Amino acid sequence: MFVLQEISPNVRNIKQLQYAVLLRRASQIKEKLRRKEKYKLLTCLLSRFQHFCFKFTCSQKVRKPNKGLIDVCWGDPHRAGVKPLTFVRQVLAACLYPQLVDSDKLPVDVRQRAQMLLKGCAGGSVGSYTATAGISEIVHRISAFITRRDGGAPSHPENIYISPGSQWALTNILNVLVDSEASPKTGVLTPLPCYSISSMSIVGLGAVAVPYGLCEERGWELQVEELHRALESAKGVCKPVALYVINPGNPTGQVQSRKSMQEVIRFVSEKRLFLLADEVYQDCVYGDKSEFVSYKRVLAEMDPPLSDTVELASFHSASKGLMGECGLRGGYVELVNLDPSIMKYIYTLFSADSCAPVLGQFALDLLTNPPQPGDPSYPLYREETQHIRSTLVHNVKRVFEVLNSLPGFSCQPVEGGAFAFPRMHLPPKAIQKAKEMGMQPDVYYCVRLLEEAGVFVKPGCEYGVKEGTHHIRFCIMVQEDIMEELLRRLTSFHTQFMKDFS
Amino acid sequence: MFVLQEISPNVRNIKQLQYAVLLRRASQIKEKLRRKEKYKLLTCLLSRFQHFCFKFTCSQKVRKPNKGLIDVCWGDPHRAGVKPLTFVRQVLAACLYPQLVDSDKLPVDVRQRAQMLLKGCAGGSVGSYTATAGISEIVHRISAFITRRDGGAPSHPENIYISPGSQWALTNILNVLVDSEASPKTGVLTPLPCYSISSMSIVGLGAVAVPYGLCEERGWELQVEELHRALESAKGVCKPVALYVINPGNPTGQVQSRKSMQEVIRFVSEKRLFLLADEVYQDCVYGDKSEFVSYKRVLAEMDPPLSDTVELASFHSASKGLMGECGLRGGYVELVNLDPSIMKYIYTLFSADSCAPVLGQFALDLLTNPPQPGDPSYPLYREETQHIRSTLVHNVKRVFEVLNSLPGFSCQPVEGGAFAFPRMHLPPKAIQKAKEMGMQPDVYYCVRLLEEAGVFVKPGCEYGVKEGTHHIRFCIMVQEDIMEELLRRLTSFHTQFMKDFS
Repeated sequence: MFVLQEISPNVRNIKQLQYAVLLRRASQIKEKLRRKEKYKLLTCLLSRFQHFCFKFTCSQKVRKPNKGLIDVCWGDPHRAGVKPLTFVRQVLAACLYPQLVDSDKLPVDVRQRAQMLLKGCAGGSVGSYTATAGISEIVHRISAFITRRDGGAPSHPENIYISPGSQWALTNILNVLVDSEASPKTGVLTPLPCYSISSMSIVGLGAVAVPYGLCEERGWELQVEELHRALESAKGVCKPVALYVINPGNPTGQVQSRKSMQEVIRFVSEKRLFLLADEVYQDCVYGDKSEFVSYKRVLAEMDPPLSDTVELASFHSASKGLMGECGLRGGYVELVNLDPSIMKYIYTLFSADSCAPVLGQFALDLLTNPPQPGDPSYPLYREETQHIRSTLVHNVKRVFEVLNSLPGFSCQPVEGGAFAFPRMHLPPKAIQKAKEMGMQPDVYYCVRLLEEAGVFVKPGCEYGVKEGTHHIRFCIMVQEDIMEELLRRLTSFHTQFMKDFS
Repeated sequence: MFVLQEISPNVRNIKQLQYAVLLRRASQIKEKLRRKEKYKLLTCLLSRFQHFCFKFTCSQKVRKPNKGLIDVCWGDPHRAGVKPLTFVRQVLAACLYPQLVDSDKLPVDVRQRAQMLLKGCAGGSVGSYTATAGISEIVHRISAFITRRDGGAPSHPENIYISPGSQWALTNILNVLVDSEASPKTGVLTPLPCYSISSMSIVGLGAVAVPYGLCEERGWELQVEELHRALESAKGVCKPVALYVINPGNPTGQVQSRKSMQEVIRFVSEKRLFLLADEVYQDCVYGDKSEFVSYKRVLAEMDPPLSDTVELASFHSASKGLMGECGLRGGYVELVNLDPSIMKYIYTLFSADSCAPVLGQFALDLLTNPPQPGDPSYPLYREETQHIRSTLVHNVKRVFEVLNSLPGFSCQPVEGGAFAFPRMHLPPKAIQKAKEMGMQPDVYYCVRLLEEAGVFVKPGCEYGVKEGTHHIRFCIMVQEDIMEELLRRLTSFHTQFMKDFS
């Protein structure tokens, strides 16, 4: 039998979850709730049966409805009760089973879009493989979207690759950049805190993640001096080849200014780094003064030689934003200024997984080309997206207000993205207790929050934070009433927790 | 700018396509056909318009309908006109857009299945992420299917991982087995010929593919002596850690006997190799005397210590078989006899891509748990699958008859899988001509077959074949009339080709 020492050292180097205990407890609680549901159902049925047979009700056995778990652990709007967009689901259902689509059931623009999308599929079926980079018509439409978004900065379809989620595309691009046999190892500058799966991919490929800290006190700002420090720190450890940025931030929720992006571009150009820009939350910007501008646009609007030499990969996804179709697995990467000889290898790597899921590709088409004024589906689409948007604006406002008024909590404004990442100032006794329990302090806090208040959030240690600071991350893409309930439970739990350890 | 010398040597080592010229020609021809379509449509519209305005028809300008391209290059049934299964598409459409589903439109078992599947999704939406290994209920149902299939040999849900296609799962398992920094490199024994994407994954991870030849003369039989020879050949080159088998074969279409599989299992046990069994064509067996038996079953029915020590990964997929839903991207791997410490890392690696597409996961549920006698959908489901099956049995019979009667062709019986892989005995003058054109002889043949007869097949060199032999691969999962037309065109083209070079 294979033993641990024999498996790939790169895989062995991937950090194991520090909060496995939390996940285990959450799934136990979910299972218990499921069983209770079943029990409730069973007692109800039994009750009716007995009522029928014996004119006897056993309704007293029906338990009180459980107040339920609030699961805001993932960046998953539908999980938390946000409704899918009608237009999106109608088009996709029509593509899967065109016979279902009566003329009186679906708006004409839905049927037209479905027909158009199916035309791009071999044999007119979503069951066929597509080209490696995705269905050509969709790739062209994504490219046109990017050009519109970026104020005319040209996008070329041959530089776009659709993938089963943006993370997958990132791993593929890293695969080209990382030399797993190199000594010293390849390095990638990554934010601290950083979306954990990205750093996992970096380590899994045999590279070293070189952390650069985001400045929490200044709203998780990316500061170029810190990039210089991080690069310096890599000396003798690894050879950095790329800089990874997440804008809007995950888990940190900041939105970069154009000026900051220009500085970053000058930095990567000077240091000869490949720029990896995770821009999957580009549709989610809430701050009054914040605006999403793509790295592609900022780069294109700078002068040569910067504009035509800095190598950039920009990632986007149908999972994020107002659509939130995580389960369909559709993302894309646009590559800028890459040498054609390298593009050839990128094609080869992408072709190793045949193609992205066809419905995920369709979702990208709908994301980048939504209904327009005048289309039959437009009014409902507008209503649904505006509702989601106003909910999110409300939620980030409430999170900021409530948490900053709670002793022992501080929260930077959430300008964009799907998460709040507040800091907790835990009492030394709580930290001591966590140590005795063999857990990180934030993990201990999350476990108790889950068990005592039924709120499932992630601990900050998962993302990497400055030594001695403690955070939690939770998804803000939930219905307003759920957010209010979450804040109520968190407030009450936290107040008690601080009292217990004061 | 990054230059070629700086990218990952593993990626650089991946063999570039030898038949790029063929793909280019195919897409040019497709584009031309598309334009012709548009031209035809335009002329028709113009014709009607002119008829209306000037009482003048220009129908003489409408070109004759082009006889069209037969694209049998991929293992893609829907591309070639095989119809999706109604039950599958109804359930999936209902899951995407439950409102569409009127009680009078869809059979009751379709609605029940859709409800059941949605219950496993967080928030009841296919737009939510699922657990890393897949939706728990579906994983359990796949496990129960495997136990039924294997005559009761137990399958454990915790050993099953759903992925976006089986190839992705294979790459992940290889990722654990291959030490990219090892010297000598890690080796994987792979069949010759071999499904090209698999060997691409092996090389891309920094391992060496050690080819073992399948015996064409004996119907592409896997012979254990050849495994010994291949292992011997690896000495001083690499350290083999795994054996990769494809059963039913791709591109070779053989089905392994139970006896042969027992020999393979004894071989891997003796040589301490991990067994990777690609069994995605398990539903596609056509030979009268052939039967698919899984490696899992053969292993479970052998005596200990074999049965409880040989490490096995078995792959299956919703893309293959009669369902043929390649575009949904759903596959799974079952792992047998792995050390728990290693399973932990496999979990970590799979979690790096969040989860498989939810609709691909649903497709696996429908694949492994189809309608049963008595269910409202059963009669149609049975009719559709039997039609596909009888078409395939007809096609493999016709391919065998026609090609073996054609001078310069010989074809082993296709016992299973999706492809015929006949051998061509090309005249020396044709080989010389190909050389002058800077192409492999089989690529030259395929390009001319495409250009002159409109038949798009793949050259054998893509899969690796014995030195000096030449093959083509084409998909047999097409409608009977298309197969007849394909054989007519191939016969006529081949006869002329042989004459030209005699």
